[in-house]
Amino acid sequence: MSKSRILSIQSHVAFGYVGGKAAVFPLQCLGYDVDVVNTVNFSNHSGYARFGGSRTSASELSTIFQTMEENGLLEPERLLTGYIPGGEALSSVKDLATRLRHKNSQMIYLLDPVLGDSGKLYVAPDVIPIYRSMLPLSTIITPNWFEVEVLTDIRITDLLSLRKALRILHEEHHVPNVVVSSIPLRAWMYESLPSHIQHPLDADNPQPDDGYLLCISSSTEDPDRGGYPSTVHARSIPLIPGYFSGVGDLFSALLLAHYQPTSEYLVSESVNANGHPLPIAASEALSKTHAMLALTQEYSMSLPEDERLPTDEEIDEQEPSRKIRRMKGRELRLIQGQDIIRGTRPIEHRKMELWTGFWSS
Amino acid sequence: MSKSRILSIQSHVAFGYVGGKAAVFPLQCLGYDVDVVNTVNFSNHSGYARFGGSRTSASELSTIFQTMEENGLLEPERLLTGYIPGGEALSSVKDLATRLRHKNSQMIYLLDPVLGDSGKLYVAPDVIPIYRSMLPLSTIITPNWFEVEVLTDIRITDLLSLRKALRILHEEHHVPNVVVSSIPLRAWMYESLPSHIQHPLDADNPQPDDGYLLCISSSTEDPDRGGYPSTVHARSIPLIPGYFSGVGDLFSALLLAHYQPTSEYLVSESVNANGHPLPIAASEALSKTHAMLALTQEYSMSLPEDERLPTDEEIDEQEPSRKIRRMKGRELRLIQGQDIIRGTRPIEHRKMELWTGFWSS
Repeated sequence: MSKSRILSIQSHVAFGYVGGKAAVFPLQCLGYDVDVVNTVNFSNHSGYARFGGSRTSASELSTIFQTMEENGLLEPERLLTGYIPGGEALSSVKDLATRLRHKNSQMIYLLDPVLGDSGKLYVAPDVIPIYRSMLPLSTIITPNWFEVEVLTDIRITDLLSLRKALRILHEEHHVPNVVVSSIPLRAWMYESLPSHIQHPLDADNPQPDDGYLLCISSSTEDPDRGGYPSTVHARSIPLIPGYFSGVGDLFSALLLAHYQPTSEYLVSESVNANGHPLPIAASEALSKTHAMLALTQEYSMSLPEDERLPTDEEIDEQEPSRKIRRMKGRELRLIQGQDIIRGTRPIEHRKMELWTGFWSS
Repeated sequence: MSKSRILSIQSHVAFGYVGGKAAVFPLQCLGYDVDVVNTVNFSNHSGYARFGGSRTSASELSTIFQTMEENGLLEPERLLTGYIPGGEALSSVKDLATRLRHKNSQMIYLLDPVLGDSGKLYVAPDVIPIYRSMLPLSTIITPNWFEVEVLTDIRITDLLSLRKALRILHEEHHVPNVVVSSIPLRAWMYESLPSHIQHPLDADNPQPDDGYLLCISSSTEDPDRGGYPSTVHARSIPLIPGYFSGVGDLFSALLLAHYQPTSEYLVSESVNANGHPLPIAASEALSKTHAMLALTQEYSMSLPEDERLPTDEEIDEQEPSRKIRRMKGRELRLIQGQDIIRGTRPIEHRKMELWTGFWSS
């Protein structure tokens, strides 16, 4: 087992599994030496309503990066960046990513542009243009649906606007690889999918837009980083109800861990679902993340009733401890499910399939 | 796999494996959920001469602890504390440990009183009395030889002074369990050991005080926490030459992970090497730490010559980069050796043996 070194820059919480706590252990299990820089040091994630601790300032971040560089300790083969709450801190990370990219054009940089979710920003608005300017440095980005909309300024309501958004990411922002996981599957998406990707509708699932999520990957092979059209893959998976934190952070870490650009497709140059490194990695990340979520959900449902209260924001407001108890019962079962990460526990494989005719149909 | 929750409070470095970076991953591999509070956030350990970053202030620590408590997230079954650089921060940790001990008398607290090594302090002197006052809160302490001397104010030069120091820890400071690993084996120690613990002297090892380390454990079973005489176990192991960082932090984490006080000795009350939970855990920790160190040493020796320069402080002073290159090549191979931690790679078992007649001979 001799894998490369990853520099991971994201949030740290003492309790629970989001940010670095959701990403670093899986990467280590999969054989990577991980250098860990914490952008915040908090007690727990913000979903608990109450959280305490401090943010790492831009100058503290720069000092850490600079000292590592002076000591010859800043030569990662891979870079992973996640939640960075303010513009100044993000600028410091951007400077670093620029230097590292300049030193090593082969570095694999997974940039997770953490901006918000479901229509709400959870960073300062000044980070948005900085993230846009960082996109050309990336190898892979993993925005959620909302973040794709914010980064591209496109409201995605149909296949045409989805195409436009992906084209902007690839052509204008020079992103070679995009993976959007956990998209609530709408009827228009379902109808746009080729039949081999559509999940079957039956008595349990009569509506196409009910109870499923879609994962999309879009990759280009253009050395100029502006390839178009891209190759698009997709997979729908059953939605596990309830809100769980850290799922995106785990997914991004697994995607980076399993992304192996030296696989044979580079030799054969055949474009199919088996050969592309991006959908191969996305399939692994999707399968493992879903299995981990199912394990967490199962545990959460086994708790006493008052620790598995359903999500209800109105009741939560009247009784904040209710939300806290629920959050605690829904922390990812990363430790108990570490065999899933390592691949030694059998799980269902959810393969990303080629979206034939994505650009032309 | 359902293990308990550990709260770990120690240093964090971005690069390399000391403090929390040496402890948390092994604990997670062994099935523990670990809550991680960082007392410093540095680029790398201080052995590199250059290091940057910041210390977590006492008030930041208190905020994190208090928020966790308010959220009902502060109920660890086990507590692990390591490097805490200043008196104020240590006082904040002491307050926490006191509250946790009050809430749960069964909590297992491994206190590593990190003060210094080989005659040199690497914390502010004001932490010494605070550590002394914390000793009665502990379940196990893991001082090195120098730290035993500082905590007890005894210079240990023979069996009598060693007895006196251990007695002070057990009787005056009410510590139930003490483990001192990595003691350079002196001739007087060798001669004090019962013959079944003495390593054989032969042509390769003609001198008793050359090339070996001793690990000692001393445990009492007195519910009043003042037991005397204690039961002492020991084991000598071959010294791996060169200075490696984070070894003590790894050892303490493994000791805590393997310490299972509900083992059968509580039922049988027979005092022997197989039954005592402390030497059982110390044997596991010693075996795994030694195997990890051997793996690291093997890697270090495989590096190009200029990255495995021998320790030489005089030459280092003239050429600081020499020290940095050596340090980098000697970081623990924790990721590559994770099978050792999990117990799935066969290693030599180094069993702690009963030191018969320790108090009476």
